[in-house]
Amino acid sequence: MSSRFYWYLPTEVFFGVSALDVLSEKAAGLGRKALLVTGRSFAAKSGLRTRIEERLKAAGVAWAVFDGAIPDPEIGTVAAGAEVCRRENCNFVIGAGGGSAMDVAKGIAAAAPDPARPIEELFGYEQLRVRPLPVAAVPTTSGSGSEVTRYAVIVDPAARTKKTISSASINPRLALVQPELTLTLPADLTAETGLDAFCHAVEGSLAAARTPVSLALAREAVRLITRHLPELVRRPDDLAGREGMSLAALTAGMVINQTGTIIGHGMGYPLTINYGIQHGLASVMAMPAILDELIVTDEYGPVIREVTGWTEPGRQLRDFCGRLGRPASLKAAGIGRSDLPKLAAEAVVGCQRAMQNMGRNFTEADFLRFYESVYD
Amino acid sequence: MSSRFYWYLPTEVFFGVSALDVLSEKAAGLGRKALLVTGRSFAAKSGLRTRIEERLKAAGVAWAVFDGAIPDPEIGTVAAGAEVCRRENCNFVIGAGGGSAMDVAKGIAAAAPDPARPIEELFGYEQLRVRPLPVAAVPTTSGSGSEVTRYAVIVDPAARTKKTISSASINPRLALVQPELTLTLPADLTAETGLDAFCHAVEGSLAAARTPVSLALAREAVRLITRHLPELVRRPDDLAGREGMSLAALTAGMVINQTGTIIGHGMGYPLTINYGIQHGLASVMAMPAILDELIVTDEYGPVIREVTGWTEPGRQLRDFCGRLGRPASLKAAGIGRSDLPKLAAEAVVGCQRAMQNMGRNFTEADFLRFYESVYD
Repeated sequence: MSSRFYWYLPTEVFFGVSALDVLSEKAAGLGRKALLVTGRSFAAKSGLRTRIEERLKAAGVAWAVFDGAIPDPEIGTVAAGAEVCRRENCNFVIGAGGGSAMDVAKGIAAAAPDPARPIEELFGYEQLRVRPLPVAAVPTTSGSGSEVTRYAVIVDPAARTKKTISSASINPRLALVQPELTLTLPADLTAETGLDAFCHAVEGSLAAARTPVSLALAREAVRLITRHLPELVRRPDDLAGREGMSLAALTAGMVINQTGTIIGHGMGYPLTINYGIQHGLASVMAMPAILDELIVTDEYGPVIREVTGWTEPGRQLRDFCGRLGRPASLKAAGIGRSDLPKLAAEAVVGCQRAMQNMGRNFTEADFLRFYESVYD
Repeated sequence: MSSRFYWYLPTEVFFGVSALDVLSEKAAGLGRKALLVTGRSFAAKSGLRTRIEERLKAAGVAWAVFDGAIPDPEIGTVAAGAEVCRRENCNFVIGAGGGSAMDVAKGIAAAAPDPARPIEELFGYEQLRVRPLPVAAVPTTSGSGSEVTRYAVIVDPAARTKKTISSASINPRLALVQPELTLTLPADLTAETGLDAFCHAVEGSLAAARTPVSLALAREAVRLITRHLPELVRRPDDLAGREGMSLAALTAGMVINQTGTIIGHGMGYPLTINYGIQHGLASVMAMPAILDELIVTDEYGPVIREVTGWTEPGRQLRDFCGRLGRPASLKAAGIGRSDLPKLAAEAVVGCQRAMQNMGRNFTEADFLRFYESVYD
């Protein structure tokens, strides 16, 4: 950890019961017409969309809807949303849903005001040339932390990997975190999105840009996740557990907003793209191998022990996944052993940013070794 | 602790070696002419003023200087600075120094654009009507955390107490925390400003607005202070210790930015105003009595134990002050026992905001009991 660091989180966070009501008061400060970005069905069926629309009406703000934010959204998804945003003349964006809806909202906020520029050129660190539209975020899962991050993670189908628009200018201005909105999230998605938050806390703590502030928040996130998630998977309607996990996801989002993620996420991208494995589950898959390799080093050992409280992190993380009823091996997730070399080759591409975030390189052989180590 | 909370810290923090250099790059984004606010002598003698001026020159930004930020600044101090700011046509403010210089800078930023309004009317929560000037903060002590707070604490001589301008719009846009700037801070001021940061972490954790995020940061701040401060008082030139304390002050500032302080600070105001006792030392004086009274309650006990790690906080805090060579009793600070009733009467006034922050009332008799309990 460097004794030099940077910290910036320009998001106004409202957490708790009735956080959504803040929209009535604050929406007009963001713009005169919102593009409301949601997934295909949850926001409509659950009544969330209506609740948001009522609050926009109360605020005297107009809106249009883009409900095409599918999981693991692609460049084309963002392009389609940006087109709607321009056509409807919206001047701010609300992302309501899981990480995908919020990331698509941020992607649209970045892309819509700069139609001449291909979305491919927006990927990377602070590559935006035109000021993005303001964003508000309403999470309905407890995982991505996208409500407080500068990232929009988008699949680039041509490159067969996920890429990231990273800019403080797309940090949501407003994060409205109402844990009750996650009450109907099924047990499997609760577990998998929760594992995403776990990876954020732990991976962020292994990034070169970790700070004492991010480490303190990461410890808190891990403490909340290990305390609440197993019980919540058994009793998904437990509001106290939902609050704990919403808070964990938020806190872990604050961590990666400063640090980025590392190769756990990067090694997950090929698993999602080739097999459709859910993002959080894909991200945690290789982590037992990564943590076991790093814990014996002077640089990472103390941090891993401090943040997780674990001394045998590989075994303990597998046990934890087991308690959540999630497959703790690639084999159990249905992946053939003969696919591993191809995955390792793709991980080299998917981990470029992750390796920069660590200030350390891994080879294709390393990635193969990690995948093999978590195969069975 | 409520499961509803608000979190907002719109400050860009640069921490570490050469943080000051960021001014060259960022100053022009704040405005075309800075009012540089410093104390009477340190910034000039230490060369800090010259270093800041060089960077403003590099940024192509003009400046004027107001070097009247005395400790425990009064309304008149802010009024005089605001007058200079308007006369010199400055459109942003840099506070470089201890908490006083930064608080005066924030006060000027709030007062200068609204000359028709008496400064007295700016006190309280979000009372500003005219958009304040942007502020940059450069701390040279490790205590106040003012570099990341929404507060400007100013003495109101007519009311014989300290009052606070509290607004997110005076949160510094930029906090440049270069621990090396605190290397020449004498041992006594190092201890006393460090105790201010300690109070921020602990008092913030006892405020009603504490959050799991603020508690995680408070634990980290207390850990850093108990680890670094005693050694630093013996060896004030230890850069690692300076880094630890600069970080602790920053982190504790993040805490109170969300929570405010409680009656520790409020009971300190009369000690400063009547006897000139340094702010941090004044703030910690009554804390042993307050903590001993609160630790036996269900509401505060677990938080006190969690944040401090102490089970007998009164005794342990006095011991800690003793290790820092600071007087741990009012008597040792030179206060006559017959003054206590007057102090208690003034504490009722000084603790109004603190009691709101706690959601709990204390009477003059309570304050007298607290002062008596820490008299010897």
